[in-house]
This record gives sequence, structure tokens and C-alpha cells, in this order.
Amino acid sequence: MSKGARTRASILQAAVEMACLHGLSGVSLQPLADRVGMTKSGLYAHFRSKEALQLATLESATERFLEAVVAPSKGAAPGLPRLEDLYQRWLAWPGNAELPGQCPFFAAADEFDDSEGPVRERLERTFREFRQVGEQLIASAIRHGHLPADTDPEQWFHELMALRQAHHWAAGFMRDAKAPERSRVGFDRLVGRRPT
Amino acid sequence: MSKGARTRASILQAAVEMACLHGLSGVSLQPLADRVGMTKSGLYAHFRSKEALQLATLESATERFLEAVVAPSKGAAPGLPRLEDLYQRWLAWPGNAELPGQCPFFAAADEFDDSEGPVRERLERTFREFRQVGEQLIASAIRHGHLPADTDPEQWFHELMALRQAHHWAAGFMRDAKAPERSRVGFDRLVGRRPT
Repeated sequence: MSKGARTRASILQAAVEMACLHGLSGVSLQPLADRVGMTKSGLYAHFRSKEALQLATLESATERFLEAVVAPSKGAAPGLPRLEDLYQRWLAWPGNAELPGQCPFFAAADEFDDSEGPVRERLERTFREFRQVGEQLIASAIRHGHLPADTDPEQWFHELMALRQAHHWAAGFMRDAKAPERSRVGFDRLVGRRPT
Repeated sequence: MSKGARTRASILQAAVEMACLHGLSGVSLQPLADRVGMTKSGLYAHFRSKEALQLATLESATERFLEAVVAPSKGAAPGLPRLEDLYQRWLAWPGNAELPGQCPFFAAADEFDDSEGPVRERLERTFREFRQVGEQLIASAIRHGHLPADTDPEQWFHELMALRQAHHWAAGFMRDAKAPERSRVGFDRLVGRRPT
């Protein structure tokens, strides 16, 4: 890796951490320059605008998500085990990517819901591509006979997203120690398992 | 109502609208003064700090929520009909309080998740008090025989919150026209109704 590429990677590491801690809209040139100990003009050599920086931060966070959540779940048995593995890794994100704070995508969805432009479009694409991954795993669990044949993958994914978002709120904002149990019981109910 | 009270009410109306559109952390003295056509020092006569202003904005938003969502649901028949009425009004919030944008509480939960102090505490109380309302309605639906006797009201409310948050994401960020249907089908599944 060239020196320029290494510098860029360490800037993006700090930018993704900022997005997890304070939201993507707080990722801008001066605060990030302060954080990484560069001048704003030094940073400008890598990112020509706040928008370019936020886009690169989203790209980098998406790569981290794919590495920590999506890729390793392929090691689980196909069907429901793989779907459940993905869900557990998703709950553990972004801590399992050695990132602080909360899922940066959920906070950014609130920050950019009424904006237009490339940052919003990139975030929407991250969600759409992950939804596609999830719906394919649900369809596979149906084919394996692990979920009822009349299961609607789109609806099922929507309810899985619902559980992940409630986890974000219960664990992140409410600091509720029961959040992991609520997320597990919710998944069992979605699968149709009897309460234990 | 005195002139001072009328002025304060119209400032808070604008502040709650700002919170729905741009988040609670964006509600501060200068932007709000610009919006209501006052000087910052004129606004300062009503709210002595950004924190006092944000607290009053949360109080006001909570009152609007109680008026638009919680109070009218008491007109529905007790048990499941009342719970479902509350859920429908909750989905329609904040539009049903004639407010623009999205639920200001969800966005604020992301903004204040890692902060300490009175604004975070007030927001947490709004959530806790509403959770209590929800859990009481769920318990009532169990007593009326509308939900199974072994239903856990805390878990059930958590999953209702999950559906509301997924609605916020699907309708607000993803602009998904199917969001209302997904929210309805999710509620039916939670109740244990057969898909139609």
C-alpha cells in the first residue's frame, strides 16, 4: 500500500468511528482534520468536499459491514442457520468490526431522510443491497423447509429489520440490559418457534 | 392567554416543526430566531439556553403526541380494539398532529444516545411513559381474552415498537409505498391473526 493509500485508510478509519459516535452529518473536513492531526488543506488533498468525504465514509462503513456481518455468515449451514447467524452478527455490529458506538446507517437514515443527492442515494443503496441479501437467505430457508412455504420474504425481512431497529433503540438509547433477550425472543417468534 | 404566553406558544410550534424536519439537535436559538422572525435576544427572554429550549421543545412535542395519539384512542372499545387504534394513530404521527416530517423522538434518540443530561433524561421519560401506556393496553387485551394468556406485555410492546421504527425507516427514509401494508401485516402477525 502506498503512503497516500495508507493515509487515506487511516483518515477513513477515523471518519467511520466519528459516524458511529456522532452521526454521518457530523463528518466534515475541519473536525476530522482535528481528530487525525492534519490540517484541513492536508485533508483536502484526499477529499475535495464534505460530500466526497461523507460518500467515502459510507463506502468504507459498508465494506466493514460486509466483512463483519455478511461474509462470515456464509460459513454457517444453509437455510435458517445461516439466516440466524447473519441476524446475530447484525445485532453485534458495529462492535464486531471493532467500531465504537452505534450502527452508523440507522442514524444517517434520520439525518438524510429529507435530503436529496449522492449521500442519500449511496445510503439507500447500502440498505437495498443488504435487503436483497436478507431476502435471498429467507428464500433459501423456505426452500430448505425451515420456514413455512407461504412465507413472504419481503415481509419477513421487514420484520427482521424492525427487530434490529428496536435493538438499536433499546440497547443504544434506553440502555436496556434486556435488549439482547428481547431481540432473541422476537426472532424465535418470527421463525415460529415456541417460547422456551 | 397573555401576549407572552402566545408568543411562547408560537415559538414552540416552530421549534417542534424544526425538530420533526431536522432533528432536535438542530433546534437552537439563532436558527429558531431566524425562523420566527425575532432577534436572538428577543428569544432569549423566553428560553435562557439551548438546553432550556430543547427541553421545552420535547415537552411540547410530548404534549402533542399525547393529544394526537394516546388521548383519542381512549374512545375505542377496550382491549385489542383500543390497542390497535393506538397503533394506527402512532403510525400516523406526527402528521395527525398537523406536524411536518418524521417522529421527532426517534431522530432525537440517535442524536442524544451518547449524551448525558436533562434533554436525554426527558426523552427517555417520554419513551418510558409511553411504554407504560402500551403495556397497560396489552395487559388489558390479555384480560379481555383478545391476546393469549401467556403473552408477555414487555416483549409484546418491544415488538410493537420494532414495527413502528421499521415504519419510520421504510416510509421516511426508503420512501417505500408498501410501508403501511407491511406495518399492518406485522401487527396482524403479532396479534396471531391468520394472513388474509
